[in-house]
This record gives sequence, C-alpha cells and structure tokens, in this order.
Amino acid sequence: MPHPDILLPAEPSQRQIARELYAHARGLPLISPHGHVDPRILADDAAFPDPARLIVVPDHYVTRMLYSQGVRPDELGVPRAGETGTAADGREIWRIFARHWPLFRGTPSRLWLELELADVFGVTTPIGEATADQVYDEISACLDRPEFRPRALFDRFNLEVLATTESPLDPLTHHAKLAADGWAGRVVSTFRPDNVVEMDWPGWAERVAQLGGITGEDTSTFDGYLNALRARRQDFIAAGTTSSDHGHLTARTLVFEPGQGQRLLTKGLRGEATAADAEEFCAGMLVEFARMSVDDGLVMQLHPGSVRNHNRKLYDGHGRDVGGDIPQATDYVHALRPLLDEFGDDPRFRIVLYTLDETVFSRELAPLAGGYASVFLGAPWWFLDSPEGLRRFREAAVETAGIANMAGFVDDTRAFCSIPVRHDVARRVDAGFLARLVAEHRLGLDEAAEAIADLNYHQPRRVFSRGPLPATSRIPSQVTR
Amino acid sequence: MPHPDILLPAEPSQRQIARELYAHARGLPLISPHGHVDPRILADDAAFPDPARLIVVPDHYVTRMLYSQGVRPDELGVPRAGETGTAADGREIWRIFARHWPLFRGTPSRLWLELELADVFGVTTPIGEATADQVYDEISACLDRPEFRPRALFDRFNLEVLATTESPLDPLTHHAKLAADGWAGRVVSTFRPDNVVEMDWPGWAERVAQLGGITGEDTSTFDGYLNALRARRQDFIAAGTTSSDHGHLTARTLVFEPGQGQRLLTKGLRGEATAADAEEFCAGMLVEFARMSVDDGLVMQLHPGSVRNHNRKLYDGHGRDVGGDIPQATDYVHALRPLLDEFGDDPRFRIVLYTLDETVFSRELAPLAGGYASVFLGAPWWFLDSPEGLRRFREAAVETAGIANMAGFVDDTRAFCSIPVRHDVARRVDAGFLARLVAEHRLGLDEAAEAIADLNYHQPRRVFSRGPLPATSRIPSQVTR
Amino acid sequence: MPHPDILLPAEPSQRQIARELYAHARGLPLISPHGHVDPRILADDAAFPDPARLIVVPDHYVTRMLYSQGVRPDELGVPRAGETGTAADGREIWRIFARHWPLFRGTPSRLWLELELADVFGVTTPIGEATADQVYDEISACLDRPEFRPRALFDRFNLEVLATTESPLDPLTHHAKLAADGWAGRVVSTFRPDNVVEMDWPGWAERVAQLGGITGEDTSTFDGYLNALRARRQDFIAAGTTSSDHGHLTARTLVFEPGQGQRLLTKGLRGEATAADAEEFCAGMLVEFARMSVDDGLVMQLHPGSVRNHNRKLYDGHGRDVGGDIPQATDYVHALRPLLDEFGDDPRFRIVLYTLDETVFSRELAPLAGGYASVFLGAPWWFLDSPEGLRRFREAAVETAGIANMAGFVDDTRAFCSIPVRHDVARRVDAGFLARLVAEHRLGLDEAAEAIADLNYHQPRRVFSRGPLPATSRIPSQVTR
Repeated sequence: MPHPDILLPAEPSQRQIARELYAHARGLPLISPHGHVDPRILADDAAFPDPARLIVVPDHYVTRMLYSQGVRPDELGVPRAGETGTAADGREIWRIFARHWPLFRGTPSRLWLELELADVFGVTTPIGEATADQVYDEISACLDRPEFRPRALFDRFNLEVLATTESPLDPLTHHAKLAADGWAGRVVSTFRPDNVVEMDWPGWAERVAQLGGITGEDTSTFDGYLNALRARRQDFIAAGTTSSDHGHLTARTLVFEPGQGQRLLTKGLRGEATAADAEEFCAGMLVEFARMSVDDGLVMQLHPGSVRNHNRKLYDGHGRDVGGDIPQATDYVHALRPLLDEFGDDPRFRIVLYTLDETVFSRELAPLAGGYASVFLGAPWWFLDSPEGLRRFREAAVETAGIANMAGFVDDTRAFCSIPVRHDVARRVDAGFLARLVAEHRLGLDEAAEAIADLNYHQPRRVFSRGPLPATSRIPSQVTR
Repeated sequence: MPHPDILLPAEPSQRQIARELYAHARGLPLISPHGHVDPRILADDAAFPDPARLIVVPDHYVTRMLYSQGVRPDELGVPRAGETGTAADGREIWRIFARHWPLFRGTPSRLWLELELADVFGVTTPIGEATADQVYDEISACLDRPEFRPRALFDRFNLEVLATTESPLDPLTHHAKLAADGWAGRVVSTFRPDNVVEMDWPGWAERVAQLGGITGEDTSTFDGYLNALRARRQDFIAAGTTSSDHGHLTARTLVFEPGQGQRLLTKGLRGEATAADAEEFCAGMLVEFARMSVDDGLVMQLHPGSVRNHNRKLYDGHGRDVGGDIPQATDYVHALRPLLDEFGDDPRFRIVLYTLDETVFSRELAPLAGGYASVFLGAPWWFLDSPEGLRRFREAAVETAGIANMAGFVDDTRAFCSIPVRHDVARRVDAGFLARLVAEHRLGLDEAAEAIADLNYHQPRRVFSRGPLPATSRIPSQVTR
Repeated sequence: MPHPDILLPAEPSQRQIARELYAHARGLPLISPHGHVDPRILADDAAFPDPARLIVVPDHYVTRMLYSQGVRPDELGVPRAGETGTAADGREIWRIFARHWPLFRGTPSRLWLELELADVFGVTTPIGEATADQVYDEISACLDRPEFRPRALFDRFNLEVLATTESPLDPLTHHAKLAADGWAGRVVSTFRPDNVVEMDWPGWAERVAQLGGITGEDTSTFDGYLNALRARRQDFIAAGTTSSDHGHLTARTLVFEPGQGQRLLTKGLRGEATAADAEEFCAGMLVEFARMSVDDGLVMQLHPGSVRNHNRKLYDGHGRDVGGDIPQATDYVHALRPLLDEFGDDPRFRIVLYTLDETVFSRELAPLAGGYASVFLGAPWWFLDSPEGLRRFREAAVETAGIANMAGFVDDTRAFCSIPVRHDVARRVDAGFLARLVAEHRLGLDEAAEAIADLNYHQPRRVFSRGPLPATSRIPSQVTR
C-alpha cells in the first residue's frame, strides 16, 4: 500500500509544506499533451486484455530492465518484428515479471506500478513471486468490470484532454469514431510527420507517394509535398490537434536555399540520397514545419537526441519501439539557430523543446526558453521522467527559465493506465521542489500554491493551445502577447 | 520583507550551523574583482536616474525574462542599436515590470531584487501591479537623497575594491578622476582586450590603428601590436588594475609559430582573414597575454563559451550586450593544454577559469585547478550564479579542487546596487553548503568558519592580487610559493 | 576522532534509517575487484616504510593538491622519471603535508586520511603543523609491530579478495609466492594489456616482441599476437584472475575487417603507425578482447576518457602515474556500438563501464546498462569516487539501471591502507542514499537493507565472478541467465 506521503521530502517542515502544495495540485484535471496511447483503445472501449498485456508487454521501462538481466523478449510476449502479438501466456509473463520484482527497486517503474495497482485497481497485495497469481487474478477481475473500460477510466482519471500521436498517413478513424460518440476535443492527435520526412527509413518513398494519394497532391514535387503536409495538418486540426511533434537524431535546422528542398526530395525518391542528404532534408523540413506553424497555429514539439534501435539484436528480432534506443549528447544552441533566426520571436510561433541529455537543462534549454518568446521547455523525457530526473530539471531550469516558460508534465506513455500515476509522481516532485523554496524563504506559500497549479495545469493548457499564446492567470492579457 | 534566514537550509540542525557560519561571513568587506559597472557612475557621483533605469533597463536577467514572455525591449526602454538611451517613461517601464513580477518566481532575480529593495532602499512594500507606483515612488524618494549617491553607497556596501572592465582603448578618465578624488585602489579597471583581438568584429582594424595612435606604436606589425598592448597594460597597472579578462567563443589556445602572429595580423588588417584565421589569432593571443602576465603580474581571467548575440532580432534591433547570448558546450582540457604546457606551473602566472557549462565543474575545471599551480576557479558565471548553480558548483568542485584553488564569488554585474545582495546570496549558499559538511561531521565548525571567510574574502584578495601568489592565512609563507 | 555518524544525512529521521542500513553493510567482507596495490607488498609481507612513504608519496590525490598550491613534487619525495625512490626524509615530507592539512578541507582525502589514521592506526591526534612529529611518531610506532604487516592488515580489513593489476608481461611472481603461501584466490591479478596495445607508447614494439618471447608465439603476425594474449590470459586465469581492464583515451570500438589487424600491427612494428592507426588498433583490439572474454570468461572492464600526462612539466620531471591526468568528455553510445552489436546480449560476455565524465551517468551509462544484458556499471572513478560523486552517481543511475546492473564499489587505489576506509565511505554514502528512498516511502526498510548488501557485497561478487553471470540472491536461478 503506497504511503500517502510517498516522494514528499522527509524533513518535517518541508513535508508539511509539500503536503499543502500537493493538496492544491492533486485534484487538478490531467492535461496529457503528448503520448503514445493507441486511440483504438478509447474508440473501441473494449475491456483490456490480460494484466500482462496491459501492464508488462507494452511498457519499455519494464521489459528493458528484464532484458538487462537476461530475460528474453519472447518470454515476455514482446511480438517479433512484423507481428502484432504473441501466443505467450499472460499469466506466465506475469509470473516472470513478479519473480523479478526486486529488480525495480529504486526505479520509477516500481513507484508507477505500485501506485497504479493501488490507485487504479485497488490492488495492494505486494508484488512478488509468491503472490504472482493472486495479484494477476485481482487485476483480471477488475478488467472484466465496466468501470474498468477505457472510457470509464478516462473519466475516473480526470483527464481533460489526451493527445495521441499519429503520422500524416493515419486516417484518424479512431478519432472520428470518438468525435461521433461525443468525445471531440477530449482525445485528439499530435501531427507527427517523421515517417514521411526521414528518407533513410525503409519504405519512405512509398509513404511519400501514399501521402500524395491521400491528399491528391503530386508529392514528387516539393511544392506538392509541402501542400500535402499542409492539407493533412488541416485535417488533424479539424480533428482537434493542437500540436505537431518531430523526433530526429539531432535538433539541426536549416533554411532551404531556393530549389534545395526539391533537389533533396528528388534524390531521395530516386533512392540516391546519402545519409547527409537525409539529415539535411530533416533539418530543412523542421524550418518548413515551423513556417506552417506560423500559418496554422500548431504548436511545434521537438524530441531530438535518441539513437534509435541501438540494441541490434533486439531490433532484428522485435523491430522498432521496444526499448532499444539510447540517448546521445545533443546540441540545441547551434542546431536551432537557423529556425530561431526566422521565427524565434514571432508571436504566431511556439516550440516546446525536450531532451534526453540533462547537461542542456542549464546550459542551453533554460537560456533559450528565457531568451526567446517562442521557446518553452517540455518535461524531462523518458529516462529523465523519474523523481530524481524531474527534480534535477526543476532545480537546473527554473532559475533561468522561470515557471511561465515551462510546458508542464508530459507522460509520453503507451501505458494508458499509468497516466494518472505518472502525473501524480510529477506533482509530488513539484510539491517537494517548491516546498524547499518555501522553507528556505525563497517563495511565499501562496505563490508556491499558484506555481504548482501553473506547472501542472495552467501552463500545459496555455502552451499547448493552438494559435497565439494565451495570457497566464497571473499576467493581464493586455501585456502578454 | 525578506526573511533573515532566506536561503539557509530548512533542516533545523543545519540551519543553526548555517546561521553561525553566515554570521562570520556577513560583515566581511566585499571584493568585486570583475564586473561591468560603468566607472562614470562613481567618478561623477551623480544621483541615479529613475528606478526603472537603475533596476530594470540595465539588468539582462530582468529584461530577457520579460522578452521571453513577449514584452518588447522598446517597451522596457532598452536603447536601439547605436543609441544610448530612450524616451520611454521610467514609471511606465516600472509598471510593466511590476505587472510581470510573478514571472520571476523561483529565479535569482526575484531574490536579488527583493533583497536590494529591502537592504539598500529600505523598501519592503511587496512588488506587484497594485503597488507599482508606490514602490516606484519610495525608491525615487531615496534616489534624491545624498546617502544614495554612488560613493555613499559604495561605502555603505562595505566594498573594499570594485574592478570595472575596460578595453585597451579606454582612456581610463573616470578612474583618473576617482584617483584624483582619493579613491585610488578602490575602483580599479580590468584589462579586457577582446575588441582589439577579435578580427571578425566590425571595426576591428580601425581599433587596432587607434591602439597604435594611443601608444605611438606601429600596430600593423605584430611586434608593435604586442608592444602597444604591453604599454596599455602598464597604464592599467598604474591605475590599479590587477587582472586581465578574455572572453572568446572557445578556450582554445596555441603557441604561435615564428611569423604566424604577423601573418594573421596582416591578413586581418587587409580584411582577408577567414573565420578560422580569426579564431587562430584569438588562440595565439591568449598565450601571448599569458606571457605578458608572467612579466607584468596581471592575473588572467578566462570567460569562454558564450555564443554572442544568439537572438538575431534582438541584436538587429538593440545591439550587443542586451541579454541575447546563449552558452555552448565548452572544452578546457584540450583547449588550454598549449597555454598550460608553457606556464601551467610557473609561479609568476595565475589564471582564473569561468564557465557557462556546468558539465566541466567536476570533469575539467576542478581537476585542472587541483593539478596545476597556476589554475584557479572563478565563481559560477551568469546563468549559473544562482543559488542552485552556486550550490552545484561547490558540491562538484570543492572535493577535487579544495578551497584554496577557488577565486571566490564574482558578481560580474552592470547593476551597481545589486552588488551587495549578490554577494550576500553567495555567502548564504556557502553557509548552507558548509553547514551540511559540518552536520555530516565532514568538517569542524571552526574549520567551516575559516572556510566561509576564505571563500568570500581571503581567497579573492589572494588570487586577484597582482604578482606572486600570497600565502593563505592558513599556510605559512615559507612553503607556499 | 571521526564521528560515528560521519557522512550520514543530518536530518534525524534519515540519519536513524541510515544508521540501521550502515549497520547492515559495515561488517560485510570487502571485495576489491580492481586496484593498483603493488602485490609485492603482500608477497613479501615486510613492514611498511615510514608514514610519508605509506600515506603521502604514493597517493596522487594528496600530492596533486599540494602541487596545485605550489609545493614541488621533489619536496614530497615523488621519484624522478626513471627512478624508483628518493632520498627525501620521510619526516620532512610529513611535516610539509601536515602544514598543508587545511588544503584538504572538503575533499575526500581529508575523510579517508582521518578515518585511516583512526581506524587503521588508532591515531586520533589531529593532523596539523604543531602535531606533525607526534602523529608521525605514532604511526611509525605502529609500523614496527607485526599486526601492522600487510597480511595481518589484509585479515583485519576483512578483505575477501583483492585484485591487483598487471600487464601481460608481468611474470606474476608475487601472486605465485602468495599462492604458495596459501593465499590463492585472495590476492589475484587483473589482466591489463594496454602497454602491448597502445602503439604510440614508447617501447611498444619491444614489449610486443617480449610478449612473443614469453609465450613462444610469433607476435609479428596478428594471429601470433592474439594467441600470445590468449595464452597469457590463461596464465592469469590459472592465478585466479577473473577480469581484464582496458584504459584507452576513448571508448571507441570497431570490428576489424579481414587483414586489418595484421596491417595495423605490421605498420606499428615498423614504426610507421599514425596516431589514427594507433587509435584504430585499440578500437579493434577491444572487440578482440571481448571475443576472448566470450571464450575464457574474463569479465571486461573499461576505463576510458583520461587524458594522460596532461601536466607536461610533471610528466617530464616525474613520469607517468603521478597525478597529471585530466578527464575529457567521453562518448559511449556510439563508441561501444560495434562491440555491443557483436556481444551485447551474449550470455557469455560481461563488460563493466567506468567513467570520469559524470554527464554520461544518466544519458549513456544507465540506459546502456538497463538495455543490454552484458553491461554493468562500475563505481564512480577517480575524481568522482568522493561522497558527492558517489551520491550523484546513485541518484542519476539507479533509476534507469536499477541495483542489479551495478558492479559495486571499486577502490582503484595504490594506497593499501586506505582500502577499508574508501569502502567505508562508499557504504556510508549508500546508506544515506537509500535512507532517503526509505524516508520518502520509495523503498521499504527491509528492501533497502538488502540493497545496501547487494551494492556492497553481493553485486561485486556476482559481476566479477568469471564466466556466466550467477543469479542474485533475489532472483531464482532458473530465470536469470
């Protein structure tokens, strides 16, 4: 049973303040402005499958820790490359997981899972080898009940809006279904064009052609390609989308010379593009997407610095997105300069920066957010979305960027049922961070109470709204623009 | 009204120790060995202009936070490029600032401003939209009184020495005026030759010619150029200067091959220098300046790693030094090797290293300071001179560099009235850092009391004295050399 | 007299928990899986020389701090390059050291030395100028007694195993003597082939020939060279060795193309290798050594990122390994990819990564350890093996890598008598780290007690055993492989 003060600072005066601050944040609706939940889950609203396929199989944080101690992905039901499921027995997967539970000591997965079981499923039996079947059965029993259907949970989670992530090729069928069911604006998409931009991914040319097919544009011309992307953005916007997302290896940007976009596109479609061409195309397209944002108001998100599919054996066996990525050192200060030269202080533009490289918190990200009207800081991403990572981010970035340049917590998860507990952990960490400022007389308690609400509700609403930046509740609108 | 325990650790046993340590440091005179106060302020000793032009307009920390939320520099009275002032109404600037006061929550500006108002001006009315005019009037009332003239404040601040920063082209008129008024040695200059070294800054060749004119040297020859710099250093030394300062994009150094200096100088004067030539010239000149230091005893300061004028729109509109710079990752270990090979253990040489990149605290700076007799560590610079940045610096660097390799706090500010509170914040952070060591039985209370005085008074006096390193009060002079 | 709670957190609730956890760890046997103690000390079991040559002269941490404040190495009895000792008077060296004792405030050396004097020698007289002779005499008196002979201390230190480090050219005479005396398995070696791999070190070709002589292989052929290395590994294994160690400038690895190894070797032996060739040879050999590990079960250790002999004057005067190295930024994510592509998930392979660059803790090392079955994290190395460095490592790496991917504390020291106190400091830091997790309700007290024993005893035993990874006491063996 998780302790009610979990993650709050141990020192009594700070704990007392942190409790008060957390009480202000706890009940605020959740804004989930970027993540990877499958929208079909909410569109179909079917009962979840077994506990292992709900909690273990789709969660990279869990499966990669098990790989790292020699458990094979096949044992865990991770599908082979090109397949969508496995016949592995859910109960058997769960037993392996439960037997290895001590591996998660000190990790955020431990906290998330414990909180998820207790808060979402009411299961407080300790996880372990001896209790594996009991816990499995307790969760299974929940999954059969209507109040554990996805939409019911969505309501219970107090989710105000959940943004999934789709490629421009996605027909947004599930979002349409949701809209037809009266869920418009609650489950929206994020426009993520990487798979029609990264020339060196297998099948890129086919996808570019498919983009043309969907939009009626000739995507072998650069103008047609841009028009097709613009058209799809409009379709996404019509379905409630407020932001785009872009995740290339680096944050490099460049302004295409006249003809350069067409030349690279043609080279790519002919299969003649080098790695340098592919990288240049990504860099130039980031500026093109920024230009589109100025026109259509989509907020731009940038997730650079992940070396994809680093674990070759895992990639060969099980494909992309199974936890085999590793961060690399990432430059923003030079990489983003061409883009910021164009749009950095344009009131019609907004960009949210994420990182896997915490060395840039104080060196690059906070100075950029505190120096450009368009730049906002996304939450610590992936390996850094842990209690210690979140705390280091606040300590390193708030002093230079302040609170109004923060975009709030982003769960970025595939695991739907972990969403509320991930936000809860972030709110607790913020309560502890702010409690120290109060206890050290650096901030009033009333100010800290506003700050925790800003960080966890008002700022994500404000930053991820489409179009011009709304005023904060703290700043009269006639001045902010 | 700032709390007397502001910034001290919340945990009671550590707070009690920190209070004792802070009491030891609080009354020590201020050494400000590097900064950007305009010496005219003290030479003329005129009343300060309005509160906005004293507190808001010249403080990048303040103006850049406001830009970052969409306030235009013109609204804040930031002069246009090439101009020296604006007609913007001070009260109106102040109102904008006061309305945006919540933006500063969690930032050092918040602490500095609150402490400055209370400690310097006795103004404890909370800043905010409703109180904007009242606070403005309270400060204004002070500025009219003789005890708020710059020299009176200098005395009240308990400033032992303040080093401003001037180019070799500066006639040091204001310093001469101060000396004539009996202020010799209290307000000195720092010799900062960047604008006659960086070939790719506009007007460089003209400035090199001007340097020749001032000194009667033919600065189109490399020997004449060096002689002219040597002559100006002597002039600065005669006016009390104890150190030089150098701030190029990188810390790269190189020992010129015979003829290389002349070749690069000539190329530069002909307007034919490439970016690589310009960088090479800076690198070689750093070694030349070190060589001069060996001869004339000026302590060398190095401030690398700032990408100047990153915000193009801000630069185009308002010129240099208005808060548009962003840090970049900075190497010291390779960059400084040529210089340290020459002078690293020379008892006549001393170099103080600063950084905007905190990743080098433990990786490069502390090992260099703990491995070379000539190397000392400057205080965390700019975005890092905050409570959390100062704390991280101590925690990362003291273990390897110790206290005797630290140069003490440097305020590096243009904002004269913020000097005492910036030092106060640093002393409070040191009190907290050392209190933890004492509470964890890693240091005796008596040792910590000596350490806080060393860090905040004895070390800056010792390190920034010209010529051979004086002994510390802790080490008999016969051993240290 | 060191306080019994030294280094434990000051806040009372955490201190109480930390005391309990430390009590669990304090009495555990010491595993010292990597270090630089001279095995002759234990083979000969002679009385230690004077206190200065035991404590000051061989300890880089101590001598470099003294250099950094102007003490010359000669004054400290540091031998000149090519010599093995000096005539400097031990008492005089000790007096210099004692006079400079305040320099060590805030450093780990201060803690280690104080604890060593108290715990190993029972000397609690405070070090200082006035007491220099007294402390010297007290230690000297100990050194004459049989219970201060090396083997007696080894027993008293509760050392289960101590791994020294030798080159493949070392005859392991001292280890043979120890085995003959019944010490087999207690003092073992680490196979460190750098001096027959780094082509650009003086005398490399001669050493490669010597390797051929020892093994009867023609080491001018690449096959013979590899065979010779394999043969020496078998000799080391026979003498109890369980791991190899490799310390090049970078972590770069590459898989040799057919013929590439021979081509580089030949070039090197002809004295024609460029710096790039030398680096390529190191990179390729790391993969060859990994391949050998798969066959013979030696655990591979990697110590990249140290710029050797950075202080030229020190190197010219006193040679290698006298504290003149400085860390550099170090990439692992790209550098190790070729090696990990080959063996990253091979159950017969295990690699332990160390770093001098703490920016990789969360960005590269923890994700690699948490993403590959073969990767484990070594303890913070050198400048980072301090209380703050150890704490930052746990806080940055445990969340992603967990505890089972940690290899435990490594003292890596030449100073035999400091071994127990270095481990003691690490255990105290772990007690404080884990106490915070318990106090914040992130871990049960029982779990934390297991974790501190895992980190400080079970994990080093497990990770540094030769051959397939043993199960942890926490994970049934049928699942882990």
